[in-house]
This record gives sequence, structure tokens and C-alpha cells, in this order.
Amino acid sequence: MNKSSRREGILFILSAPSGAGKSSLCRELIDSLPDLRQSISFATRKKRGGEKDGVDYHFIKPEAFQKKIEQQQLAEWAEVHGNLYGTSLQTLKNAAEQGIDLLLDIDCQGAVQLKKNYQQGVFIFILPPDYAELEKRLRARGTDDEDVIRRRLENSKQEISQALWYDYLVVNDDIVLARDRMLAIIAAERCRSHRTAYLLDKFTVKGDK
Amino acid sequence: MNKSSRREGILFILSAPSGAGKSSLCRELIDSLPDLRQSISFATRKKRGGEKDGVDYHFIKPEAFQKKIEQQQLAEWAEVHGNLYGTSLQTLKNAAEQGIDLLLDIDCQGAVQLKKNYQQGVFIFILPPDYAELEKRLRARGTDDEDVIRRRLENSKQEISQALWYDYLVVNDDIVLARDRMLAIIAAERCRSHRTAYLLDKFTVKGDK
Repeated sequence: MNKSSRREGILFILSAPSGAGKSSLCRELIDSLPDLRQSISFATRKKRGGEKDGVDYHFIKPEAFQKKIEQQQLAEWAEVHGNLYGTSLQTLKNAAEQGIDLLLDIDCQGAVQLKKNYQQGVFIFILPPDYAELEKRLRARGTDDEDVIRRRLENSKQEISQALWYDYLVVNDDIVLARDRMLAIIAAERCRSHRTAYLLDKFTVKGDK
Repeated sequence: MNKSSRREGILFILSAPSGAGKSSLCRELIDSLPDLRQSISFATRKKRGGEKDGVDYHFIKPEAFQKKIEQQQLAEWAEVHGNLYGTSLQTLKNAAEQGIDLLLDIDCQGAVQLKKNYQQGVFIFILPPDYAELEKRLRARGTDDEDVIRRRLENSKQEISQALWYDYLVVNDDIVLARDRMLAIIAAERCRSHRTAYLLDKFTVKGDK
């Protein structure tokens, strides 16, 4: 990339407690912005019905994943229910260099690692309007029993307690409002002066640098 | 203000070189956002035809202005063509405490003072699309002679060279696009976690603090 003529790609990291509506929000954003791409993680779990390799995840074998860990190829990774999930460091670097903005849907644990290892990106935490609504949404799924719901609620509380280190807090009280807040954050971050300094070049007298 | 229940007001500071279209942009923003107020400066110069005291400026006598300087009541002030202009520190503090977002249209000189003295606010620099367009716009006014245009262009170059310390750079290539970028910045800044931390309170267990 010619750094003097265009900006680097921005990594937008989205975290949210279970039930805050993060997945729907990500879909809305990807549908609204043709110049925003979803970052695709590696996963060692089996592909589920309807999922596509390279679209939902890059499905790889546990041995291949372990190799990536050992060779420090992952910007973050986590084990969830015995399966491994992770983000390629090279993919993030390439997107940044090529000026591609990426959306990364990730849990708090992964976001913390990214903050430490990658030290770039805009960290956004999606909040449910309140605790009662979160509980309502988790119950409305109708798929989990009382124990699972209780555990998810406890986890959510734990995750929300970490939200303060994120750059932005976005309340998902209404999907359209939340999407608009997200779109505003993306548009604003694209105007940040440390990313758009190249705009000043054309006003500089030749030989001024 | 009850800090735990609502956020402080944000001060949005707009600077731009002459010819970048800042005044039109400010009007667009004030018209678009009912919850954004224009900050009104003190001025010692004579009221011009059509101007209203308390709307365009708070017109005061030079002696009263001097007193404000001595009593450190101004967050910034400057002498321009023999007249004094300044911003009341108390007005900024009151707006912040009352949760009122203010738009302050100010030159680079004043913005630097605010950055030093007030240490708050979101600093936005409006850029013309390029130097040729800036020159074209200054000439299109048809009110200034060649010397004045030359001096304004030199001043603009000088001001643009300072733009990098601002938080955001917004190109005014098109008034609607520039307004939308500004609206995005305002909406995004309202979601910044250091301003919206109170949102987390309702998820905290009672007695948790």
C-alpha cells in the first residue's frame, strides 16, 4: 500500500454477551456496507448443516490448529466446549495493508488477546437494554433449560463487567438504532486523523517533507 | 447532574481554513440535530446589520472583556483585526454538567488554547477537497482583491499544516457528505465508553460498587 495516498484498513471488533443480538447486528452491518468484510475465523469443530467452509469458518483439523498456535500465526484463539477457534494474524495484517476494513465477531476472551497481541482495532461492546430484557431474550430462544439459561446470565454479567475497556458501548435496544450507531462509529473511525493524515499531503508544498 | 444516570455534555470544536465551508456546515448540523447547540462567543466588535446579541455573539465592551481575561473566565480568546473574541469557561462547564452537547466554531489559534486550557472536547478539522478548490472558492466570493486572496491562501496553508493534532479530519468535498461525516462523528462520540460507563450500572449487582 502507498501509505501517502490511502489509509490502512480498520479492524472493528464486536463483543457482546449472549442474547445481546450481536449476530443479527453483524449481518445488518455487512449487508449495509459493501466496503466492510466479515473476518472469518479458523475452527476445529465439525461443520454444521448449512455452514460453508471459508464463509462461516475456515474448518481445519486440530493438528493444523495446534501448528498455527506453535508458529504464532494466530492473533487470538480460544477453546470453547472442547473446540478451538482462532483468528489468523496474517489475515488481519493483509487487510490492514490493503486498506480493507474488517468486522470481527468475537467473545471478550478473544478481544482481550487481540488488544494485547495485535494492539490495533476499534473495540465495540454491544449491550442489551437491561438485564431483564437479556433474560427475556435468552428464554425466548426456547432451546435451553433453566440451568443453561442461569449459566448464560451469569456469564453475561461477567462479560458486561469487562465492557469498560472497550472503545465504544452500543445499546441494542432496537436493531435499527443499534445498526445506525454502529454505522456512525465505522464512518467516524474512518475520519480519525491518525488514519487520514495522508489527506494533508496535497496541501503540502513540494519538498516540504 | 447525576453522573450515574446520564452522560456529560460533549464539546465539539470545529476549525477550518477560510473557504472550507465551515459556517454552512455548522448551520446544517444545528438544523439537523435538535440536541446540539451552537456555542456563542463574546465579541468586542460592533454588531453588524442582521446580527443579534446573544445569537451571533454576546457583544460586550472591551473593558468587560479585559476583566474576563484578568479573572480567567475565558477558556480561549484571541484578538482579530483589533477586536477581541472569546469563549466563556463557565458556559462550557455548565453545558458539560447539564449533559448539553455544544458546537464551537473556532479558528486554530483558539482551538489550541482550548486543548491546553479546557482539556476536553472533540476536535474536528474541516478540509477543502484540495488547494485548487480552496482557491476557487475564495475567488468565487468576489469580495476580496488579489492581495487578500493570496494572504488567505497562505493562512489556510499554515492552518492546514496544524490539522494533524485534531481528532478528526473531515473533507468538505460535498456539503451533504461532509454533514453526514460530522453527524457520524457526533453519534459515535456519544457512544464512547468513557462517556457511557453509566450504562453498565444497571447490570451491576446491588452493593457491587
